[in-house]
Amino acid sequence: MSEARPLASLYDVIERRRDVRAEFTGEPLPDDQLLRILGAAHQAPSVGHSQPWDFILVRDPATRRRFQQHVATERDVFADSLTGERAETFGKIKIEGILESSLGVVVSYDPDRGGPAVLGRHAIADAGLYSTCLAIQNLWLAATAEGLGVGWVSFYREEFLQQLLDIPTTIRPIAWLCVGTVSGLQDTPDLERHRWRSRRPLAEAIHEGSYRAPLR
Amino acid sequence: MSEARPLASLYDVIERRRDVRAEFTGEPLPDDQLLRILGAAHQAPSVGHSQPWDFILVRDPATRRRFQQHVATERDVFADSLTGERAETFGKIKIEGILESSLGVVVSYDPDRGGPAVLGRHAIADAGLYSTCLAIQNLWLAATAEGLGVGWVSFYREEFLQQLLDIPTTIRPIAWLCVGTVSGLQDTPDLERHRWRSRRPLAEAIHEGSYRAPLR
Repeated sequence: MSEARPLASLYDVIERRRDVRAEFTGEPLPDDQLLRILGAAHQAPSVGHSQPWDFILVRDPATRRRFQQHVATERDVFADSLTGERAETFGKIKIEGILESSLGVVVSYDPDRGGPAVLGRHAIADAGLYSTCLAIQNLWLAATAEGLGVGWVSFYREEFLQQLLDIPTTIRPIAWLCVGTVSGLQDTPDLERHRWRSRRPLAEAIHEGSYRAPLR
Repeated sequence: MSEARPLASLYDVIERRRDVRAEFTGEPLPDDQLLRILGAAHQAPSVGHSQPWDFILVRDPATRRRFQQHVATERDVFADSLTGERAETFGKIKIEGILESSLGVVVSYDPDRGGPAVLGRHAIADAGLYSTCLAIQNLWLAATAEGLGVGWVSFYREEFLQQLLDIPTTIRPIAWLCVGTVSGLQDTPDLERHRWRSRRPLAEAIHEGSYRAPLR
């Protein structure tokens, strides 16, 4: 586990960033810190400068509990699809820190923002979705630089979150991020430590000139 | 225009990052620098640790020229959808630096990577797509920290890129990133400078407890 270094360099932050489940301490987040990480998200690039993201802060314990129960149900759905070693390995893995973290940040995507003619989106309908994810990564890295932890929960149905947080049906919830103070960050990602899946060598991901041509 | 500061802190990099079109100098990229920014991308979080991204390096000028011609056609398609002030404003905006930058990095997404049971994706089919975007933002920020420029081109049809780079039809190209050395980075995003669209105040993007409740 490593300690926080708020003004650390970019590469250092990228390396230390973890998807946090078990390390939240539950202490409240100072407002200035929260505004800095949301500000970092808001500075992300977006297709046609559409800035199609929104951030819904969920502090209310009862709301978080309802979400946590929904996630537990979806965890069971996934567990039921597994057998043998996969089922056993998954059984040990904690998938969320919804109640332990002090805050949920739901990031949503509004396809109508900046429309109807969004510059750079006529040929790729998902481009606005991509922009929203870039904002999420900015938030995640900023939180890491601040010494905070972030955990992305994705065991949920979008319709459930729309109803829970009164999100219009035209707007998609993209992520529930558990955000909070942490005791530290793991050196190795949870899914590697628990042998769910190992790291792919970088060289395998690089291709030269065409998809079928490996790195020279 | 601001100068490069390779070991700058995260917030500084997030603020300086720009979507570059006109500032590429065309000089070749040192291999160690390229590997560092790809390594940063490869350290992104991914659903179920699936690491579903790939990076196709496109240096060949003839291939880049073919892509540039396709993009010019799609630019015309978008321009034809505009009228009045929008058409006039768009006419002044440069949308790509495909030939001026020394390298194209195409980032693709493989939905079959780590399957069939990808942890965290059973309820949200797009979750792997989101992971790929997080990798793109890591790359973009790392390039900015290195003093390089990145420009995301999205005026293209996915099928065209699949054919151009021999990408299997099951794998989606998510971005063509122009990457290269730059004379500097603009202080203000191009689409703001050219009055295509202005910045949304951060406070408007923050909601408290539900989507319909503004920031308190």
